[in-house]
Amino acid sequence: MSVTIFDKILAGEIPCHRVYEDGQVLAFLDIAPLSRGHTLIVPKEAKAHLHELSDDSAAAIGRVLPRLARAVLKASGATAYNVLQNNGKAANQAVMHVHFHIIPRFDNSGLGLTWNAGSLEDADALRMKIVNAMESDSP
Amino acid sequence: MSVTIFDKILAGEIPCHRVYEDGQVLAFLDIAPLSRGHTLIVPKEAKAHLHELSDDSAAAIGRVLPRLARAVLKASGATAYNVLQNNGKAANQAVMHVHFHIIPRFDNSGLGLTWNAGSLEDADALRMKIVNAMESDSP
Repeated sequence: MSVTIFDKILAGEIPCHRVYEDGQVLAFLDIAPLSRGHTLIVPKEAKAHLHELSDDSAAAIGRVLPRLARAVLKASGATAYNVLQNNGKAANQAVMHVHFHIIPRFDNSGLGLTWNAGSLEDADALRMKIVNAMESDSP
Repeated sequence: MSVTIFDKILAGEIPCHRVYEDGQVLAFLDIAPLSRGHTLIVPKEAKAHLHELSDDSAAAIGRVLPRLARAVLKASGATAYNVLQNNGKAANQAVMHVHFHIIPRFDNSGLGLTWNAGSLEDADALRMKIVNAMESDSP
């Protein structure tokens, strides 16, 4: 994969507003925030998409999310927020290194969501496809 | 907190289209999907918001996300997807039990995002507030 701006931040070649770091994860302020407190969490492992990431890196991100969310809420004064992680340009991914957003929600800023829900069709067949894919991909 | 539909699913009182389960996590098809393959991952721990969840539950969700994403992509044929987790009614949370969405993105279905990015102001002060909140909340 190509070198992204997040790889350069991880390598110390570009500065960031770091809020947290451990052996597997770095978190910093988004420089183009959707709202005050908008924070990014990236794995040190260089993978473009979440489905390519190791279980351990993904677990490390999951583990720090509650504490980072509490800190972002405390610092921003927000009480609501979205956690978002985009994969693929068609899904609004802009930087091809896995990143999770924590986006505080205020009356006039935050993440805008459009929710056009449909109905679940062909559920049993779809379910079995996912179950079979999970079972053939055991860790 | 009040009993939600996800608590009833976890208790076996309401059926679901289960695709994965382990000691800490249950995943199942969303009955009102935004796209084919839309899947929910919930912790068995009964908490309304991510910032209230234990580190261990959050890590368990993180750990299974890459494998679930691979399975959803394989089953749905999608190549792009969003992972979303909403906290608070103002941030579009509808069920008050923590849940992560995996939402495949197709040309004509998936999650709609509105991205009104601003500029990062007062970054040093904001950063220090988050750093201090993290440090006063060590695990």
